[in-house]
Order: sequence, then C-alpha cells, then structure tokens
Amino acid sequence: MSMMTGEQYRKSLRRLKPEIYYMGEKIESVADHPAFVPHVNAAALTYEMALAPEFEELLSTTSHLTGEKINRYTHIHHSHDDLVKKVKMLRALGQQTGSCFQRCVGHDGLNSVYSITYEIDQKMGTDYHKRLVNLLKEVQSKDLMISGAMTDVKGDRRLSPSQQKDPDLYVHMVEKQKDGIVVSGAKAHITGAVNSHGHLVMPTAAMKAEDAGYAVCFYVPVDTPGVIHIFGRQTNDTRKCDGCFLDQGNVDYGIVGGEALIVFDKVFVPWERVFMCGEYEFAYELVERFATAHRQNYGGCKTGMADTLIGASYALAQAQGTDRASHIRDKLVEMVHLTETLYCCSIACSCQGYALPAGSYMADPLLANVTKLNVTRHVYEIARLAQDIAGGILATAPSEMDWKDPRVGKYVDKYMKGVADIPAETRMRLIRLLEAMTCGTALVESMHGAGSPQAQRIMIERQANLERKKRLAEKLAKIGEQPLLVC
Amino acid sequence: MSMMTGEQYRKSLRRLKPEIYYMGEKIESVADHPAFVPHVNAAALTYEMALAPEFEELLSTTSHLTGEKINRYTHIHHSHDDLVKKVKMLRALGQQTGSCFQRCVGHDGLNSVYSITYEIDQKMGTDYHKRLVNLLKEVQSKDLMISGAMTDVKGDRRLSPSQQKDPDLYVHMVEKQKDGIVVSGAKAHITGAVNSHGHLVMPTAAMKAEDAGYAVCFYVPVDTPGVIHIFGRQTNDTRKCDGCFLDQGNVDYGIVGGEALIVFDKVFVPWERVFMCGEYEFAYELVERFATAHRQNYGGCKTGMADTLIGASYALAQAQGTDRASHIRDKLVEMVHLTETLYCCSIACSCQGYALPAGSYMADPLLANVTKLNVTRHVYEIARLAQDIAGGILATAPSEMDWKDPRVGKYVDKYMKGVADIPAETRMRLIRLLEAMTCGTALVESMHGAGSPQAQRIMIERQANLERKKRLAEKLAKIGEQPLLVC
Amino acid sequence: MSMMTGEQYRKSLRRLKPEIYYMGEKIESVADHPAFVPHVNAAALTYEMALAPEFEELLSTTSHLTGEKINRYTHIHHSHDDLVKKVKMLRALGQQTGSCFQRCVGHDGLNSVYSITYEIDQKMGTDYHKRLVNLLKEVQSKDLMISGAMTDVKGDRRLSPSQQKDPDLYVHMVEKQKDGIVVSGAKAHITGAVNSHGHLVMPTAAMKAEDAGYAVCFYVPVDTPGVIHIFGRQTNDTRKCDGCFLDQGNVDYGIVGGEALIVFDKVFVPWERVFMCGEYEFAYELVERFATAHRQNYGGCKTGMADTLIGASYALAQAQGTDRASHIRDKLVEMVHLTETLYCCSIACSCQGYALPAGSYMADPLLANVTKLNVTRHVYEIARLAQDIAGGILATAPSEMDWKDPRVGKYVDKYMKGVADIPAETRMRLIRLLEAMTCGTALVESMHGAGSPQAQRIMIERQANLERKKRLAEKLAKIGEQPLLVC
Amino acid sequence: MSMMTGEQYRKSLRRLKPEIYYMGEKIESVADHPAFVPHVNAAALTYEMALAPEFEELLSTTSHLTGEKINRYTHIHHSHDDLVKKVKMLRALGQQTGSCFQRCVGHDGLNSVYSITYEIDQKMGTDYHKRLVNLLKEVQSKDLMISGAMTDVKGDRRLSPSQQKDPDLYVHMVEKQKDGIVVSGAKAHITGAVNSHGHLVMPTAAMKAEDAGYAVCFYVPVDTPGVIHIFGRQTNDTRKCDGCFLDQGNVDYGIVGGEALIVFDKVFVPWERVFMCGEYEFAYELVERFATAHRQNYGGCKTGMADTLIGASYALAQAQGTDRASHIRDKLVEMVHLTETLYCCSIACSCQGYALPAGSYMADPLLANVTKLNVTRHVYEIARLAQDIAGGILATAPSEMDWKDPRVGKYVDKYMKGVADIPAETRMRLIRLLEAMTCGTALVESMHGAGSPQAQRIMIERQANLERKKRLAEKLAKIGEQPLLVC
Repeated sequence: MSMMTGEQYRKSLRRLKPEIYYMGEKIESVADHPAFVPHVNAAALTYEMALAPEFEELLSTTSHLTGEKINRYTHIHHSHDDLVKKVKMLRALGQQTGSCFQRCVGHDGLNSVYSITYEIDQKMGTDYHKRLVNLLKEVQSKDLMISGAMTDVKGDRRLSPSQQKDPDLYVHMVEKQKDGIVVSGAKAHITGAVNSHGHLVMPTAAMKAEDAGYAVCFYVPVDTPGVIHIFGRQTNDTRKCDGCFLDQGNVDYGIVGGEALIVFDKVFVPWERVFMCGEYEFAYELVERFATAHRQNYGGCKTGMADTLIGASYALAQAQGTDRASHIRDKLVEMVHLTETLYCCSIACSCQGYALPAGSYMADPLLANVTKLNVTRHVYEIARLAQDIAGGILATAPSEMDWKDPRVGKYVDKYMKGVADIPAETRMRLIRLLEAMTCGTALVESMHGAGSPQAQRIMIERQANLERKKRLAEKLAKIGEQPLLVC
Repeated sequence: MSMMTGEQYRKSLRRLKPEIYYMGEKIESVADHPAFVPHVNAAALTYEMALAPEFEELLSTTSHLTGEKINRYTHIHHSHDDLVKKVKMLRALGQQTGSCFQRCVGHDGLNSVYSITYEIDQKMGTDYHKRLVNLLKEVQSKDLMISGAMTDVKGDRRLSPSQQKDPDLYVHMVEKQKDGIVVSGAKAHITGAVNSHGHLVMPTAAMKAEDAGYAVCFYVPVDTPGVIHIFGRQTNDTRKCDGCFLDQGNVDYGIVGGEALIVFDKVFVPWERVFMCGEYEFAYELVERFATAHRQNYGGCKTGMADTLIGASYALAQAQGTDRASHIRDKLVEMVHLTETLYCCSIACSCQGYALPAGSYMADPLLANVTKLNVTRHVYEIARLAQDIAGGILATAPSEMDWKDPRVGKYVDKYMKGVADIPAETRMRLIRLLEAMTCGTALVESMHGAGSPQAQRIMIERQANLERKKRLAEKLAKIGEQPLLVC
Repeated sequence: MSMMTGEQYRKSLRRLKPEIYYMGEKIESVADHPAFVPHVNAAALTYEMALAPEFEELLSTTSHLTGEKINRYTHIHHSHDDLVKKVKMLRALGQQTGSCFQRCVGHDGLNSVYSITYEIDQKMGTDYHKRLVNLLKEVQSKDLMISGAMTDVKGDRRLSPSQQKDPDLYVHMVEKQKDGIVVSGAKAHITGAVNSHGHLVMPTAAMKAEDAGYAVCFYVPVDTPGVIHIFGRQTNDTRKCDGCFLDQGNVDYGIVGGEALIVFDKVFVPWERVFMCGEYEFAYELVERFATAHRQNYGGCKTGMADTLIGASYALAQAQGTDRASHIRDKLVEMVHLTETLYCCSIACSCQGYALPAGSYMADPLLANVTKLNVTRHVYEIARLAQDIAGGILATAPSEMDWKDPRVGKYVDKYMKGVADIPAETRMRLIRLLEAMTCGTALVESMHGAGSPQAQRIMIERQANLERKKRLAEKLAKIGEQPLLVC
Repeated sequence: MSMMTGEQYRKSLRRLKPEIYYMGEKIESVADHPAFVPHVNAAALTYEMALAPEFEELLSTTSHLTGEKINRYTHIHHSHDDLVKKVKMLRALGQQTGSCFQRCVGHDGLNSVYSITYEIDQKMGTDYHKRLVNLLKEVQSKDLMISGAMTDVKGDRRLSPSQQKDPDLYVHMVEKQKDGIVVSGAKAHITGAVNSHGHLVMPTAAMKAEDAGYAVCFYVPVDTPGVIHIFGRQTNDTRKCDGCFLDQGNVDYGIVGGEALIVFDKVFVPWERVFMCGEYEFAYELVERFATAHRQNYGGCKTGMADTLIGASYALAQAQGTDRASHIRDKLVEMVHLTETLYCCSIACSCQGYALPAGSYMADPLLANVTKLNVTRHVYEIARLAQDIAGGILATAPSEMDWKDPRVGKYVDKYMKGVADIPAETRMRLIRLLEAMTCGTALVESMHGAGSPQAQRIMIERQANLERKKRLAEKLAKIGEQPLLVC
C-alpha cells in the first residue's frame, strides 16, 4: 500500500534538502524547526486522517490509473461525488486543525494540468498529458505532497509579463536545451511550499503571443538546485519560538498554511517534467480551471475552521457567563448562518460540476467564484462576531509567562477567572485560540487565497450571461417576441 | 394522459364556484376577472410548460403510485434528483413569469403530509396515510392545483392557540360527527388560494395537549360551503383594472402570487379527507417539515425572478447609455453574485437531503433555513441595486395615458427617450417592469413567505449543534482530551 | 406681516392657472383634485407650522434683506445656526407628515443661485445677483413656494448636452431677444412643481464652451405660457381617488412629494428673471453648491419620517403582541441607530459649513455627500426592518371595502385583530401606514433624490484629498521626511 | 507655564517607580523598555503637539480654574466648542500617530467625576467636588497624564458585584480608616496605565444598596504601594524587541494604546483622594456620563487613524500599479465615506451636547452611543477594504532580516518591487504599516474600547423614546387625536 503515515511524511521531509530562509536564518529541517512544526503537523494530518477509520471514506479513494487505494489529495476527480467529497474532506480537516493544511493547492494543480494537457495534446499534437500521467503515478504511489505554484510576483500590475522592466517578474523560460528548459522568476505566497516534496509550477494569467516564453508549466522537486524558498512572516509568528505554549492559541497547527516566496534562479527542468512550453493560448484556460478548483474549496476548509471558531466563541461565552444572553445567541446563530451559506456554495458548485474532455470533473465555474467571493466577506464578519462575543480581553490578556510568574501569577489566575467553576486557564486557552483564528494573517488568507475578490468578480461577469437575462426581461415587458427559453 | 393544458386549467376553474371577495365585490369568475387573470396566467404556465418539449423534463415526471406521467407539482420526491429538479423547475418558472406561480405551496404540503401521516400511523395505529395517498391519486390523475394552507391569523402572538380570547384565531375542530369533523377559524396569506381546486389545511405551530383540538389537518375543495376567500390588496393592484396596459409592468403575470384570507365558518370535512385530528405531538414536526420543503424553494423561484430583474436592469441601462459605466457593471455583477448565492443554497439543501421513513425525500433542514434567511436579505439588496441602476425615473415616469394623450403624448415620447435609437416605449416598458418587480408586495413576500426571518433563526439555532462545535474548539485549545470526531 | 397661512396658500394656488396633466386628464385645480390634495397638504404644513408657537423658532426667521419675519423656506442662511435649524425644521416636518413636504428644493435653489450670481458678477461684471435679490424679496414678501428645477431628462448619458441628437434633451436658450430669452427643453422629477408658485430653473451638469447655450438659469411663474406639467405616477396612487380612506395609509399627506416632468416649449423669460446665460464655467459650481445644500437635507426629512416609521412599527408590534420579543427590540434599536446616524451626518455637515463670498453659508460638501450616500442605504434597511417587524400581513391585508362589506366585514374584523384589547381597525391603519411608507416610490426617492449614489461617490472622491492622506502614511512608515501637518 | 514637553514627560515617568510586569519580567523603566517606548512616544506627542504652533489651538486651552494655559487633556469642557475641539484634536493625533495616544481616558474620567461629584454633593451634602477640584488643579499645574480606570474584571457576568463568589472581582472598599480607605480588586484593559502618573478609579456598573461597598471612586499615584500593573500581550508585540525595525510597521507609535490589568491589593487611599464612597445611587449615572464622553471620541481618533490607513492603501496601490483601477478607486471612496460617517457622528454628538449642573458640558448621549456603535462596524470594514487593496502580500511578505540577508536579500529586493521606479523598501514599509494597523489588537480596540456594542445598544434603546415615536405614527394613521408635538 502506497499511503504514508504522518510520521512517514515527516521522515520523508527530513530526507530532502530544500534551500529555505526565514528571518535571516537558513533552515536545516522544516520538520523540526519550531517555526515550521505547526505547518508540518497540519499537513501530516492529511496523511493520518486518511488512515483513520472515521475519515478514510473522505480522505482516501481509488486511483483511476492503478486501482490502488490512494490519498484523495492525489486523486483526479471523476464524478460529482468526488467533487462533493473533496469539500467534505476539507471541512473535516478544517474542524480538526482550525488552520490551513495546505495540500489542496497541489491537488487542484494536478487536476487542472491533467485536463488541460489533454486538450493541448488534442489540438497541438504534443505529449504533455502522458508526462503528467507519469508524474501523477509517482505522486500517487509515493503519496507525495506537492505545492501548486501559480501566482507570480507581477511587478507593475498595469504591464503584461513581457512588458515588465525586469523580465523575471513572471516565471519564464530563459533557455531551451536539448534535455529540458531553464527557467527563472519567482512565485509568491506559495502555500505549503517548504514542507512539500515538489512544486507544480503554472502560469498565472492570460497571455498573448509576445508572452509565449511565460507560458510554462512544469514540476520540480523541492530541493532542485536554484530553487530557493523565503518564508514569509505571519502574525505572532515568534510566539512559536519563545518557549510559550498557551500564548500560541492553536499550538499544534498554527494560524495559516505557511506561505513562501519561491525563487527560481536559472533552474533546469527536464522535458519529462514540462507540461506546457509556449502554448500561450491555453494559459488563461489553465488559470480559470485552477481558479475554479481552488475557489470551490473555500466553503470547505473555511467552514471547518469556522465550526471551531463558533465552538470557541460559545465555550468562551460559557466561561464568562454570557452564553444565554439573547444577543450572544443571536450572534452565534449569525455565525452559523454565514458558515453554512459558504458551505452551500461549495456543495452547489461541486454537484453542478461537469466532465471535461479528459474525463475528469471540474466544479461549476460561476458558482465556484460565487463561493470564494462570499468567503472574502463572511469570514471577516464571522471573525468580527467572534471578537464581539469574546470581549476586550481578547486584546489585553496577560501572557502565559505572567500567569506562571511567582510574583504575579496568583493575580492573573484570580482575575482571569470568569464563571467560578471554570478554571482561568480554560478561559485563557480559549481567548488565545480565538485570537489566533481571527488575527491578521488568518483573515487575509480568506481575502486573497485563490485570488482577490476582483478576480472573482471578473469571472462572474464573464459567466453572467447578461444578454440572455435581457431577453427574459424583454419578453415579460413584451418588447419584441421571443420563444420559451431553456434555463 | 392526466395532465391539463393551461386552457383546460382555466376551464376547470370556471366550473368551480368558490366564494371570493375583493375590494367589496363578490367575484364570479377568477379566470376572467382582470384582478385575477395575471395570477391565473402564472399558475396556468405550470401546466403549459409541463407540456412544452423544452421544459417537460423539469416540469413533469412519473408517479411512484401509478407509473403515469404527471406534473411535477403533484409528485412526491423520491430522490436527490427530484429535489434538485424542483429547484430548477422553480428557477425556470421564475424566469418566465417574473412573478409567483403559486403551485409550490400545495406541492410542499402534499409532500409533508405524505411523510408525516406515515409516521403518525406507525406510532398511533391510524390510517391517515392511506387517506392521503387516495387524495394524492386524485390530485395526480386530475392534475389539480391545491393550496397549502398553514398560517393561522394567530391573534396575540404571546398566547398559544388555546389561550387566545377568541378560540377561532387558530383553525380548530368545533365538532366531531360520525362522518367527519366541523372546523372553524381562518388561514392567512394563502398563496394561489382563489385559483386552486382545493385547500390542504395544516396546523401552524408546535402544540401541547391542551391545544389538541387545533391539531387538525384536512383537505377541502375550494367551493366547499362555509369556505370564504377574502383576497388581499397588492401594490398597484388597481392598475390591472383601469384599462392601462403598459403601467402594469408585468402585464401577463402580475407582481405576486395572490394571497387570500380563507375563512372556515363551521365547515364540514368528511373523515376520508382528515389527515390529523388531535395528534398534537406531530404538529411541530409537520410544521418543520413543511417549512423545510418550502424554504428550500426560495433560491429557485426568487433566482428566476432575479434573472429577469437583472436582465431588465441591464436593458434599461443600455436604453439610458449607462451600461458600460464601471459602477453599473459592478452593480450588475453584485446582483448576479447575490442571485447565485441564493441558488447555491437551494441546490445544496436539495442534494444534502435525505429519505424519510415513508420513502419520500426531504431537503436538509439546516441548509433550507439558511437558504430562506439569505433570501430575506439578498432579494432586498438586489431590488435596491436595480433601483439604483434604473434612476429616479422609476418613481416619476408619466402614465401610459399621458403617453397616448393627444395633447402631451408627443412630449412624453420625446423626453422619455434615452439612447437615440431605442424607442421611448421600450424604456417605459422596462421602467414599469422594474417598478412592478421591486415594489412593496413583491419584496414583502421574500421576507415573510415560508416564515419570517426569526422563524429561520430559531430553526438554525436548533440544528447548529453548538456542543459539538465546542468540543472541536476544546480539542484544539487542548482543554481535556477528545477522540477524532466524525464531521 | 408677509407669511401665509395654509389656507391662504391653498387659495393662492387656486388663483394660478398652470397647465397640468395626469393620467390623461387636464387638471383644473391642484388644490382640490384628490390626486394632489395630499401633496398640497404637506406643503401647506410648511406654512401652518411656521405660525404655530411650538415650531415658529424652527420654521420662521428674520430676513437679512428687510428685517421682516419670514418663513425659513425663503431665507438665505447666514450662520451655522441657520444651517442646523434647517435640518431640525426638516426633521420636525418629516415627523408630522411622514412624507415629503417639497419646499426645500426651491429653498436650496435660492441659496445656491444667491451665492453663485454674486461670484459670476464679481468675475464677469454682470448684474445677476441684483436680479436674484429682487426675486428673493418677492418670494419673501409674498411667501412664495418655488420649485428648484435642475435635473434635465439627459437622453443618452454618454453624451454632453450639445452632443445629443435631440437638442432639447437639456434645457437651453433657443433665441435671445431684446427683452429676454426663449428657452426649450424639459426638467424631470421636479418635486412640488405642480403646487408651487414658480420655478427656479438651473443647469444640471458641468459644461464646456460648446454647451454655453445650455448654461441658463432663470425663474418663471408656474402658469407661464409654454410651461407644461406632466405629473408622474406613484405607487398606489389611485387609492387616493377610489373613495378609500384607510387603504391610503397616510391619508393626509400621501407617500412622496409629487414629482412632475416640466416641459418648456419655447418659453419666454424676461431678462430680470435670468440669472445665468452662457457663463458655462459656473455651471458645475452651481450644481455642486445646490447638490451640497440639498444633500444636507436628507438626514433631516428622512429621519423625521423614520421616527414615524419606527413608531408605527413599534405600535404594530404592540398590536400583535410581539413588542417585548428580544429580536423585535433589537430591530427597533437598529432602526433608531441607523436613523440617528443619518441625523448625525446632516448635523455635522451643517455645523462644519462655511461662509461664501456673498456672505451666505453653505454646508460642508464632503460631509453633505456622505450624508446622502448613507441615506441611499440606511433608508432601505430601515424599511426592510419595518417590513420584518410588521409581518406578512403587510402584503396581504384585505381592503377597507371588505372590512366595511356587510357580507364579509365581520370576518375581516374578527381575523385582523391581534392583541385582544386593540381594535382590528387600529392594526389595519398601522399596516397601511407602514405599507405607504415602505413601498416603491417612497424608497426610490431616498436613492435618487438630490442625485444618485454615484454622483455622491464622485464628489466624495474629489474631496477626499488622497494625496494628503498618503503623506500621513509615508510619515509614519518613515518614507521621506515631512513636517507636522495641519488637519 | 505649566505644560510639559515630550521630553519632560519622559523624564517625569523615569522619576516614578510603578510596579509593572510584562511577559514574566519586572519592568524597570517604561520610558526606556522597547516594549513600551512606542506607547510612551504616542502619549508624549500629546505634550509636544500642544506646544507646536500648528496644533496649539486644538491641544491647548485656558483653565477655567486658574486662567492659565493648559493642555486640553486636563481641561473641563465648558462649551460646544470645547467638545468639538476635543474631536478635532483626537483626529489630528490619530493622523500623526496611526495609533492610540491614551490620554483621553483620564480626561473623560476627570470630566465625568467633576460633574457627578457636584451633583452628589448637592444631594448628599458631601464635599467630593472640592476634593476633585483640588486634584484637577494639580493635574493642570503639573500637566499630569492620568488613566481612567473603570472596567472591572467582572467574573461571572450573570452576577452583580456583591453576588460574585470572589468579592474582589469588582474593586471595592475593604476597610474604612480614619485617614482614608483601603481598597482591593482589579481593573482590566486600562489604557495608558503603565505610562500615566496616576489612576482615576471609577465604578463600572449600576449598583444597588447591597453593592454599596463597590461604589468607590478615587485617585492614586501610579506607584502607590499595592498597585500592581500586568501589561497585556498585543499582536506582534515581540517585533518591538527583536531588533527589527521595518517589520514593526508603525515603528514610532506601535499598534494600540497599551492596556494593562491593574491590581489593587489592599491599597490605602487618603480621604482627599476619594470622590465617591458608598453613594451607589450615582454609580450608574457616572458610568453613563463617562461612557458618553468616551464614546464621543471614537469618531475622532479612529478617523485620524483611518486617514492614515487610507493614505497607506492608496500609496501601496500606487506602488503596485493599481491605483487607477476603478474597483480600487471605489474601495478608497468607500473607506473615505465610512471614515467621514464616523467623524460626522462625533461632531454631531459634540455640537448637540449640553451643560450639566456643575457648568461643564457633556456630549449628547444618544448620538455618542450611535457614534461608537458605528465604529464597531465601520473600522472593521475599513480594515477589510485596506486588506483587499493591499493584496495577499500583506500576509506573506518576508521579514526585514531576509531583505538584509547577504544570501537572499537580493531576491527579496528584486521580487518585492512593484512599479519599477518605486523602491521595494517603500512597498515593504507600506505593507508593514497596513499590517500593523489592521491586525488583531488594533481592531478589537474598536469593538470593545469604551464598551462593547451591546452596551451601546442598551443605551440607545433607553434613549430612543419609542413612546413618542408611536404617538407620531398614531397621529398620521389617525388613531386618536394628538396635538402638534415638539421635536
């Protein structure tokens, strides 16, 4: 059997030697450095839960290539049920981690490149799809975690890739060699990058003929020479390293996925790992397909996290004696309502999905974009309501170190107590969990992960079919005559 | 074949003699009185489209009782696909009518009573389910339109049915006879009541032992002696009767379903049409089941109507030369976004539904309530945006009569013109359509149809499972130890 | 003394012979036709309350020209206190009428033209200001109500006045004569036009040299030859004429101000009534000044109306037994909160106003636009909450005629009763008042009166001073060095 | 002259020896410890700007006690102009610091206790007011910064002070001695506490006779024996101490005011510093008065901060090449609109304020509560829009240490560049400033500072005068007869 345990995943990371920098330090082992352990833990849970009897139906499935049992994160969707199960898997993981578990990005990348290479081959006579299938077999058999590296750094947003003053602001081919290509550039905000086994690199925008050199899609192992990872700062990141425990809030899993800037400095990629090289006409379709797959997710993982956040708010209200106040109940109901609205969106875009020429399934693009656009609003409102329920203590609670201090610990314990029979420690833990889940980085991910709101609005406009809606109105207003229209 | 055409439906109404009053007038024929024709037209379309090749897959299906082809509005759902098709049928009808077509209420009533009678019989040894199946066979074979009459007038909301000073403020049994029962009371806001063939009457609230006399469920033909219909006023209702055409906006279908107060003044109901009589323990479950079925709908019909409203807004913007302005595009995109959000909710609660003991299917109650709660907000915002796009002319346009007036018609035509090559008449028709679809009654229906927002919030709270969410949070915050939880 | 009573105002209207059309009928006397009486009543109250001891401090003041006591609606503001009192006057009138009382538009026009003519004269050597002062003296001494006619019909919004295919789509000078000018065109949505004594006509947009013929500002008596009024339809307008009383809701004052299309068909205006004629460079400033003055108002009149609407919602909740439910209290609080927010905006832009070169005062433009933009949102939300509190009966209540009908009146009375000791009639009256105040036309006025939301956004952007805000940020981020900045 | 410079303020802090703990460390000098320097800087600016010619009109005034020139923060308001200038002073300081400058709390406390002691004395024959005047003279002559310590830790929110299991959960008198009283308990979230000269302690809730021991109001110097300060953790607080500069975002002033838990462990207070001792009937009025004064502020300081945030968003959009995109302009306009709405509220409640029996002025309570309630919403939305404009880089930017790293610094500089002629450093500084101003602690302060939203809703309901609004509605609906009502 090909599926790894969480521990095997950790060991596999230790065998790799990726080049990683964080706060001026070169990181030797992501699996062991305290700044990275929570991210590794969250990813490891995607391995562990796939082997747990309660979750295996959601997290594992059967390979359409080999018939072997595989982790769902390495699967190509082949039915509505696959699409719906993906959403339910994400919600389950969000509930268990209260954080990002990172593995969906590469999964969405694999699915997108799987279908688009099939279509490129059909039209251009290339053999990209076979190469991708070979990669996929390796990913499935070794149970690899791969990142999906799409977003370029973009430089001046008014300019296309080839118009930028610095040609490296979008990843591009700098040299074509006999055995492969050499690429340079950088991908930004790449989730899970430092604790993945490899990177699936895709173009990030629609392209024209002059941008053909930027239409590159390929895979590289994480420790390929010239691939350099610079890990971003997160809110309260140093709490992981200063010996505190309680103050981290979500001590096991952290607050976000862990995003890195991946620099490609003249990196060689052999042909068998190249899946697009100059076919610029397909760049936009690949982006839209990946965007759809990834936006579909956000009513899954974010609702799982929201379940936990609602639970923490409710528990904290109990610890403070406010859980029966009508305005608190009303806020909890509103949080549930917003959460389930997001879930509805992910479920609906999944069960309204359709098959592509390659036989794989994708979610409905209009509804997937609607899903994500709602996330950019509702997750903020849910957090706002959680902060309302929590009270000002969320911003002023003393540190764990003061609570343990021999001089003032007794005061902290005495005055952090709410309802008499619930320990101050319980209240402090809930406060810190709420803090971690509603602070800066955790929210920004909901705004910009899988693309900014305006990106969703543009796609919604494209698919809105205003002309057909106009004809419906003209018919009712008896302007001209139209036949009955199929919905 | 048992399905009626629209024209057969109109004729069938003319054969009945219900007692109907409206604005002090006794109505002789609903199918012919101008105040009712638009409502009859909308209901007739549920017959016509079921026979139209483009729509028959949505609007017709096969009876599980007889194997005959029937109108979907007489069908008992037996699969997820049935639940999803119902939503798509509603959206298609909303697009074609821009109004309420009324027939879903009785449909939801039949489905709810079908399943609950099965369960009452199982527990109480009664034979209600058989009676309901007999009614259903008649409804299917004759293709009847029946109303779903649930909401009582309720009097003082602080008091239960049996506490009210006037015992008739909830419908109740006033006498039990050998052949049947005698009932009195009134049902309020009953959609489609005056142009239905009969009424399926259900209790409206949870009940206790002292309210047992109010736990009655039965069916009566619309022209049963003692059944009196008083039709409510609607916004701009008299425009239908004053010879205007254009000023009505939606001339064929009106602006809402047509709601009536149904008075039951000592009405006799034979036993074979009684489906609950004193089993008060089942009243709440019946209400919740009907509420779920009915709230499921609102992301169907309202999104169909919204499609038309968006189209009208877009067409009017074109007529005024504003359709390319970025703020207008943005508002159109927002309208689409909100509309599709509602659609997602209805689709999701449908495909997350489940089978009941009777074998029929119901939508997911939590998600159905979320659907309707979103409708009470988004439909208002969509209307607000439409009014924003339309401009002040929505509130000040001259009447059709001035446009046709020999003295000032030329001025109206000259100054109501926007873009030079689009006739003033086109603009005026679109203005009136927008007016009709965004005015008072049309919005209030979105707020209170299928129950007021607070009713949805109460059900959301009941199903929110806050205790489980609390355990998820405690696990992350490491308060106590819990096993992995099934989502 | 120069101030009229309400009755004198009505008589003065009867002495005029304006040309008015409505629904294909030529109106003989606006003061007596049932479609117009409510509008006349509301305007008459601006006369009556100025003479009532409780309100005279708000509604009357002293002329800066003559020292005589005058109605505030004919006053030129000369202090912050004048600006604030204007807002309080509007709130008081909104509370008493629950509707629009129309007289502010001409008032704002007078103030705007007063200051701008002063500045034109300063720069161009003209004598417009003296002419305007002469008009003002007449208005004050005769206590005239004048309309402020700014909005042109505009045709194709992409085109400037001189680019339109039909040159009359903006009001313009068609001939210059020795004694005056001849104008053609039309002004749309003019509040109170049919029951005013005259019209103050102003340009509606920024203009360039080629639009100079459109830069005209003048005054004409309402019954000047060639001036034709076509009155627009309103929601439920025919309820005023069909003998119903209760069904009108706000029987004395109607639901909006009464807007008309004013056509100018080769109308002669003598020079002494011309206040701008070709000085296109001042058109935009006049528009902005009028817009500021008028947008200042909306947190006055609308909050007065909202007070009444909140009161009606509260009274209806009492009649239904829901007034103590926590969710109802919460909605009432929210309505109050939104209402007072609007009031704060109007008060703030008033007391942050400043003196103009002519010595008169205008409100702060940025804050006045903020006021109106909030109105376009909050008034809708207040109405939505009112409809939530009211319940579905708002859309389905039977007519007064059924309540009085000998056959079914007893049923209506019995079943429209809520709390036992409050008559059904009380509940029905409140329902109809709420219906009138929250239906179509009443809301659209909040959206587009004083300009559409986008017009406010454009002015807010112009006055936002983003460059200065940028410097504040750069200073904190230590980008370059800046001195302390004056706020 | 009695006013200190910023440097004199810092020196004065070094002369005091308060007991302060933070993260397990006893702090020797708040004026010099890097965790506190930014807070001290912000407070110091209230001294510096009072002496700067551009700001002295706002920040300084004349003592009504001595006629001396004083810092406005030690002034008792005696006019509308004083109330309005306070708001403008707050906005100016918010613009300059982008953070909380802490000094308003004690200022509001002084004003509240000033007026309430006058009224207690009038009714009870006490001499509290004279004592307060003596304190005030000292505060003015020495230009002291004092905290306003109102919020108790509250324990179980369902229980009143005297019902709590632990009697110290509200500050109370534990012993009455000849020369003064002894108090115990703790005050939570006290802004500026550690860098104040003393604490003005006030009760936090309405009280009954059994709570009389909790109705205590007094002043203590910050280094009084038994007074212990435990400083709370803030978002990203350790960035101040780890040698980073750029990563702090707002390096001079930090992100919030700096809140501490103040423990009173049997602290002796001499009678001349006691201003209430058992007069429980005045506790609620004091709370409401302080709440009004403090809620008035939030449309001042927060709008100043928002100005800076808008500027940073705009500057960052320029650095990324998106500042001319219509959706970015629209978001900036929305941020300005929301900001100015808050400002309107603070201005309005100020100029609608009134004189109290002591001669001092307070803001309008209804409008002050409306102000703060809007802040709990709009500040979050403004931050959300800023995060939207900023892009995902807000959550993933590399640290300053990587930018300076010899190995990867070149990559960071290359790929963090947006528009070609703006340095990467500029963009990084703006990103960090936006991060600091929109992260956790900064927002929570807007929610709970000056009381939680529900506290505002309760006060709004109390002052809404629903009965009068009901009478307005009844009059229009012609239910009974009422006279004209004074607004």
